[in-house]
Amino acid sequence: MNKGIRFFEIGEQIEQYFLIKSSTKGIASNGKPFLTLILQDKTGEIEAKLWDATEEDELRYTDQTIIKIQGDVQSFRGKQQLRVRKIRPLMEQEQIPIDYFIERAPLEIEEMQSKINEYIFEMTNPNIQRITRYLLKKFETKFYEYPAATKNHHEFYSGLAFHVVSMLDIAKSLVSLYPQLNKDLLYAGIILHDLGKVIELSGPVSASYTLEGTLLGHITIIVEEIGKAAEQLEIEGEEVVVLQHMVLAHHGKAEWGSPKPPMIREAEVLHFIDNLDAKITMINRALDKTKPGEFSERVFALDNRSFYKPSFQD
Amino acid sequence: MNKGIRFFEIGEQIEQYFLIKSSTKGIASNGKPFLTLILQDKTGEIEAKLWDATEEDELRYTDQTIIKIQGDVQSFRGKQQLRVRKIRPLMEQEQIPIDYFIERAPLEIEEMQSKINEYIFEMTNPNIQRITRYLLKKFETKFYEYPAATKNHHEFYSGLAFHVVSMLDIAKSLVSLYPQLNKDLLYAGIILHDLGKVIELSGPVSASYTLEGTLLGHITIIVEEIGKAAEQLEIEGEEVVVLQHMVLAHHGKAEWGSPKPPMIREAEVLHFIDNLDAKITMINRALDKTKPGEFSERVFALDNRSFYKPSFQD
Amino acid sequence: MNKGIRFFEIGEQIEQYFLIKSSTKGIASNGKPFLTLILQDKTGEIEAKLWDATEEDELRYTDQTIIKIQGDVQSFRGKQQLRVRKIRPLMEQEQIPIDYFIERAPLEIEEMQSKINEYIFEMTNPNIQRITRYLLKKFETKFYEYPAATKNHHEFYSGLAFHVVSMLDIAKSLVSLYPQLNKDLLYAGIILHDLGKVIELSGPVSASYTLEGTLLGHITIIVEEIGKAAEQLEIEGEEVVVLQHMVLAHHGKAEWGSPKPPMIREAEVLHFIDNLDAKITMINRALDKTKPGEFSERVFALDNRSFYKPSFQD
Amino acid sequence: MNKGIRFFEIGEQIEQYFLIKSSTKGIASNGKPFLTLILQDKTGEIEAKLWDATEEDELRYTDQTIIKIQGDVQSFRGKQQLRVRKIRPLMEQEQIPIDYFIERAPLEIEEMQSKINEYIFEMTNPNIQRITRYLLKKFETKFYEYPAATKNHHEFYSGLAFHVVSMLDIAKSLVSLYPQLNKDLLYAGIILHDLGKVIELSGPVSASYTLEGTLLGHITIIVEEIGKAAEQLEIEGEEVVVLQHMVLAHHGKAEWGSPKPPMIREAEVLHFIDNLDAKITMINRALDKTKPGEFSERVFALDNRSFYKPSFQD
Amino acid sequence: MNKGIRFFEIGEQIEQYFLIKSSTKGIASNGKPFLTLILQDKTGEIEAKLWDATEEDELRYTDQTIIKIQGDVQSFRGKQQLRVRKIRPLMEQEQIPIDYFIERAPLEIEEMQSKINEYIFEMTNPNIQRITRYLLKKFETKFYEYPAATKNHHEFYSGLAFHVVSMLDIAKSLVSLYPQLNKDLLYAGIILHDLGKVIELSGPVSASYTLEGTLLGHITIIVEEIGKAAEQLEIEGEEVVVLQHMVLAHHGKAEWGSPKPPMIREAEVLHFIDNLDAKITMINRALDKTKPGEFSERVFALDNRSFYKPSFQD
Amino acid sequence: MNKGIRFFEIGEQIEQYFLIKSSTKGIASNGKPFLTLILQDKTGEIEAKLWDATEEDELRYTDQTIIKIQGDVQSFRGKQQLRVRKIRPLMEQEQIPIDYFIERAPLEIEEMQSKINEYIFEMTNPNIQRITRYLLKKFETKFYEYPAATKNHHEFYSGLAFHVVSMLDIAKSLVSLYPQLNKDLLYAGIILHDLGKVIELSGPVSASYTLEGTLLGHITIIVEEIGKAAEQLEIEGEEVVVLQHMVLAHHGKAEWGSPKPPMIREAEVLHFIDNLDAKITMINRALDKTKPGEFSERVFALDNRSFYKPSFQD
Repeated sequence: MNKGIRFFEIGEQIEQYFLIKSSTKGIASNGKPFLTLILQDKTGEIEAKLWDATEEDELRYTDQTIIKIQGDVQSFRGKQQLRVRKIRPLMEQEQIPIDYFIERAPLEIEEMQSKINEYIFEMTNPNIQRITRYLLKKFETKFYEYPAATKNHHEFYSGLAFHVVSMLDIAKSLVSLYPQLNKDLLYAGIILHDLGKVIELSGPVSASYTLEGTLLGHITIIVEEIGKAAEQLEIEGEEVVVLQHMVLAHHGKAEWGSPKPPMIREAEVLHFIDNLDAKITMINRALDKTKPGEFSERVFALDNRSFYKPSFQD
Repeated sequence: MNKGIRFFEIGEQIEQYFLIKSSTKGIASNGKPFLTLILQDKTGEIEAKLWDATEEDELRYTDQTIIKIQGDVQSFRGKQQLRVRKIRPLMEQEQIPIDYFIERAPLEIEEMQSKINEYIFEMTNPNIQRITRYLLKKFETKFYEYPAATKNHHEFYSGLAFHVVSMLDIAKSLVSLYPQLNKDLLYAGIILHDLGKVIELSGPVSASYTLEGTLLGHITIIVEEIGKAAEQLEIEGEEVVVLQHMVLAHHGKAEWGSPKPPMIREAEVLHFIDNLDAKITMINRALDKTKPGEFSERVFALDNRSFYKPSFQD
Repeated sequence: MNKGIRFFEIGEQIEQYFLIKSSTKGIASNGKPFLTLILQDKTGEIEAKLWDATEEDELRYTDQTIIKIQGDVQSFRGKQQLRVRKIRPLMEQEQIPIDYFIERAPLEIEEMQSKINEYIFEMTNPNIQRITRYLLKKFETKFYEYPAATKNHHEFYSGLAFHVVSMLDIAKSLVSLYPQLNKDLLYAGIILHDLGKVIELSGPVSASYTLEGTLLGHITIIVEEIGKAAEQLEIEGEEVVVLQHMVLAHHGKAEWGSPKPPMIREAEVLHFIDNLDAKITMINRALDKTKPGEFSERVFALDNRSFYKPSFQD
Repeated sequence: MNKGIRFFEIGEQIEQYFLIKSSTKGIASNGKPFLTLILQDKTGEIEAKLWDATEEDELRYTDQTIIKIQGDVQSFRGKQQLRVRKIRPLMEQEQIPIDYFIERAPLEIEEMQSKINEYIFEMTNPNIQRITRYLLKKFETKFYEYPAATKNHHEFYSGLAFHVVSMLDIAKSLVSLYPQLNKDLLYAGIILHDLGKVIELSGPVSASYTLEGTLLGHITIIVEEIGKAAEQLEIEGEEVVVLQHMVLAHHGKAEWGSPKPPMIREAEVLHFIDNLDAKITMINRALDKTKPGEFSERVFALDNRSFYKPSFQD
Repeated sequence: MNKGIRFFEIGEQIEQYFLIKSSTKGIASNGKPFLTLILQDKTGEIEAKLWDATEEDELRYTDQTIIKIQGDVQSFRGKQQLRVRKIRPLMEQEQIPIDYFIERAPLEIEEMQSKINEYIFEMTNPNIQRITRYLLKKFETKFYEYPAATKNHHEFYSGLAFHVVSMLDIAKSLVSLYPQLNKDLLYAGIILHDLGKVIELSGPVSASYTLEGTLLGHITIIVEEIGKAAEQLEIEGEEVVVLQHMVLAHHGKAEWGSPKPPMIREAEVLHFIDNLDAKITMINRALDKTKPGEFSERVFALDNRSFYKPSFQD
Repeated sequence: MNKGIRFFEIGEQIEQYFLIKSSTKGIASNGKPFLTLILQDKTGEIEAKLWDATEEDELRYTDQTIIKIQGDVQSFRGKQQLRVRKIRPLMEQEQIPIDYFIERAPLEIEEMQSKINEYIFEMTNPNIQRITRYLLKKFETKFYEYPAATKNHHEFYSGLAFHVVSMLDIAKSLVSLYPQLNKDLLYAGIILHDLGKVIELSGPVSASYTLEGTLLGHITIIVEEIGKAAEQLEIEGEEVVVLQHMVLAHHGKAEWGSPKPPMIREAEVLHFIDNLDAKITMINRALDKTKPGEFSERVFALDNRSFYKPSFQD
């Protein structure tokens, strides 16, 4: 039915559904108010101007609403812009799956829940297991809906949980190759390491930073939560401070946001796995858009490198 | 009565009291055990060897005991060493003030308590005031006895409280010069900023790092304590996260141990005052041992600089 | 009478006085000359185009002239622009206080002079006092009119003197808290530290860098001036080189422009005070424009940080 | 039979076999020549002095010879030293397994050969497979005997091949988790990445750097070898330059010795796996010598960090 | 006849020859195709739009074609643009020397050849001489046509050879001042150091990077070529690895692209000469466009510095 | 007659002249005073102990005295030490050329004077010429005797002038290769660039830093001297500030001690020549002590690199 925004061409007439990512009011040279709408679907974003906007329009076309637009794709200063002919809100009887508008993890929440629960089930140290289970339960809904970041990688719906599941799978294979690794610590560290993001970020979609997120950061937030959980569960063993350290150190270095570098073997491995999953994910995404025999666009978070897709790669 | 260790000269015979800073057992070439004692008084340290040490000696001459030695000051590989003729523990009736052996803050604990309480009393925001008072009370004894560090500056008995008092005095004068500063935040930040040291360090004298101190650090420790205090006191205002940020950011930069840089005006000022008091204290100490017209020894924590005492300085 | 530029709104008609910050000639597509005027008052700047400019216009509407304009506020590429209907130079009988057009220090020159003279009066070392007084006298007029910088902080009329006065006040309170500090050195260092700016910069308003300023910098300039002053006054004591060092080292580190780091206690303190006054001033300015509960704009010179104004701040 | 050097105690008499790690001639104060022998077995090293050494001794007791010594363990300047009573070379009939003297990989060469051949067998791209097989064959003996480094990790007999096998195992599990990865490239890159070490280093035991190793380094050496192999095998596809890049980039950054950063996905992953195996190996070794509840010695190659072994770790 | 592009003025009508640097197709708002042509001559570049471009136009006006245009110089968004009235390809009988369109080295190829051959002739070590001669011969045509870089310095036709000649002349005078320098090594190193650019870059004009250039870089490329040349010439002496090192190390530091720093005296000197010629060339170019008493534009490759041309400089 | 210290062997008896580099009094275990003498000749240094030193000895054997010693070369803690049998001061009739004891430049002072005067004579700008001549005359004696540094390179008698002469010779050849260079500026900059060392350092032999040298540095010192010279000579042209900049910028970067980077072409070239002469000199010295086919000792000031002397180097 609908053609994705990324595939729009100048001159084309379209009629389809969009999610309003942001709606901002402005005043035109003629003194009349207008709305600048950033419209999104899963494939991209496009700007649209709604001229001579009424007060009703302002109330109706707010952030995160779904609308239907009929219009023309035009060019403005080298970028595409949508000229709106008709616009209306979604009607009650219309059912557009949210997947149409936003990117989400390739696994269903239930699958991820079942995998993570299995990993927790495998733990043998009761203190570590109880703290992990307690905190996961405390923030469960958000954990399975939030992204892992606002940009770069896993910045989509359920991205946080999906990142954790991928990391757990890597951890499992490393545990079998290096049997000295403490499985409980490593699994718990992975599950908790970014859990503070459910407080640091504002929501599952188009997330921004909360005040607590900006002033304290997700690492500090979850370290405090582990402390409170231990108090609540009346756990006093060394596991508490060790788990807090796992999370505290997972950025690897002070200048990357970890006030203490990893001083536990599993903390070092956690830092590695986190990095590895993030980097492969970013490179895969860049190469998905690249033809064999060509270089990808530059990836800012990877030192602005461009990656080559060999021509013999099928 | 006693001559300070710093003033010992080779060839001299001495007879006086020392605090054993550390006692380590070794085995001599002849196969017999001996003790290497590091003796200290307020002016310095000297090594002594106790040859043919009995098991009783080992039990008697342990760390932090006070002893009396009669012996000769000798030279060994360019350093002074004490040749022990007689040694015995302190006898019950002997009263040696602890000040003789260790350095301590120039203010009495009572004076510092009264000054700090006055600063708390001046606060007008009840949330900030209550959290500060609660945490100070929780760790009060240790707060007034612990050093502020294990080396470099304020590493003496009551050093932590003394550092806080000096900083509060600077803060007071800045508040009067820059009236926009929020006095409550600044005073509370100063009082709490290093309070985590009472958990990070092992004790008031010859302090080393605890496990929690090594793996988490005093900043993370006290941030968590502020969170728990707020929960306990049922305080939910923005003051909690702002206070936590004040403490979190007081090292100024990620690479110096603050995962977030100051993003509150008073946090920036707190960072400054902390630095200023530490630096003036270190330079003063180096110059105290320097004659006019000469350069001091190098101060490692100040980029290994040496400071000149002008010859016109009286 | 006049509405500040910062408060102009699109569509508005205005008629008021401006200072021409810069006037640049251009050639329009129709081949005729026009002037691009950057107009300023104390609250901000706005661009105006004067089309079909005559040669007389060019001569009349030059930098730093005051003019009266009647026109309309319009929008051009997202920024405000003034469409000129009528323009004329200031007439002789019109008296517009310069404060209307430019920012200036909050203290009057006389007040600052009296404060600084008092600080000089307090000095007891005659060599330091004489050099300070001699150089201040030599550059007196400029010292009280120049800014302390071309941007970031104290970049306004009398900014240099005001920065010095604020620093002296901080110094005074530090001297009382740390009595070991040599008051004479510290006060003299503060008064002289940026005095080279009267040669480095081009003038009191809209300052740019002179050739000497660019090739040598204000630090080198004033160090040489201290040397010449001593020669002139026939002063030969160690005070000369120590004062030169105070100034030379006040940027704190080689990479910040001081070829020698502070190696005198008072030089370290001077560096601190300079930094502190600059930083508080920048943060205050950013927060003045910020509502409680919001973050300020980013401050480039403070590592591009944004500062939060707590919502409980009144 | 033999007690390892690490377990020697002062005062003990020993009689056992050693490998001479190095033998250096000196002249004693009495004008007579002596030999300083560094003796090693798998557990450690000890110094021995052979006084009044004859010319025959000099020729007999050279580097890498096995000898038998009867002597006493003594203390000299705080370190153990062996006082030699009797010394003689290994006699023909004596059979001391080389494992007694040197550390070696935990897998037999045949096992490693079979694993690596299997990985090569799995490759489907003939160009990649042929180059890999050709170069492995060219340097086969050395590849299975050389260490991977002179210190830090895998610096033992067969260390290079063992490091490669461990990396291939990690690669295999990553390939199954991230199916986009090109298995052929990744396996070939791992097998070749450090192969230049067989030219960079001097031999399988107590390796030092060759001239080529010092002036060019193992990365440049093997990149050239790949080029020559392709020429020899008359392979001209893009695989050649891509394989060369895999090796060239495996240190990850210019400052770590790779003139080009990874610009192929598999090159980035190779860099990660290399790092991961090296780091886990180093941490494991440090923790093997550490008791639960204690910190390990500092590991220089890991930013001089010390690692904690949790007390709940069995 | 022709006026250089740099000297065009708005409003002017011109009729002259250009080289098309790049030709890009676009679609106008009216849905019709157009070509954006970047036109160049030796003095600069200008953009031209060819509206309503036919398919024939597309095929005719491609990169690196010479054309004749009649049109008007206009202003568009502050930059000059050429409005095309008439356009046609170069006719067969028209002879425009290539120097008119592109910058080239100030020496003729023959002169450079003769100078370089003389330097090779002066070498006395046959191994060094043969390798140098062999490689120069192998890539001779390209060596004398390619630029030394794509931007910053010597980025013109024959720039590579000209850079080498200038460096050889400096080397000659240093050899006479420091007679310990090995002339053969230094000359050979200079001739070979950038020779890999003939593979790294795509051609003599408007060069971009080849795949080999991007993934391996000119240093690695030529090091391999030296190895192959030695094999071909059956040279086995130490000269091979030393020459490879000369080239490998010529960027001076790992972070500048040399995996090994100079460890041969002549390698250090080669690095210096390379830098010196590059820097003087860049500064000269910047100052050529600067009037006495003014500062040049900023030179990005020289830390973005601006250079002053003294007013007493004639 | 005399054998150089570097060639002493343990057990040897010697009788020869030495220069006392330093003489330090100590107190032996038996309570009697002794002198530790560091003796030097051009080839090296050796320590000698003079036991039971009388007060007369102390006065007689002070720094920089020449003495004659008869004694034995012994070994103490792995280093050679001289056991003194007889010692006496130099007698009046004994004539030992100073070259025997200290290293000095390979050119005579007169030769250097004549070369430098010739370079000054070649200058055509009278302002530059007069300032250079004036300052050279002002510090002439010291300029021809002082070293250029206290260690690393040119740290010998007349080292400063010799360094300047070598640099002038390089400059001369660069001026002929790059005719745009302003000869006057370059020559004057070279002659003046390190002239401040005659105030920064304490003397021509065994130099240490003066107070002015430590607090201001030779760059600041000479910049001020240029300013005073111009005042004295009543020169006011732009040459003054340009010459000051040449000297100010000759360390190239702020972190290397130049508060301004080179912003004049000749300043950049001066920085280069300074570096080049220093580096070649250091490498030559290291290689002089190295056999062909071996690596030199590490050179600290060259990033601690070791240099290889090729085996084909004669």
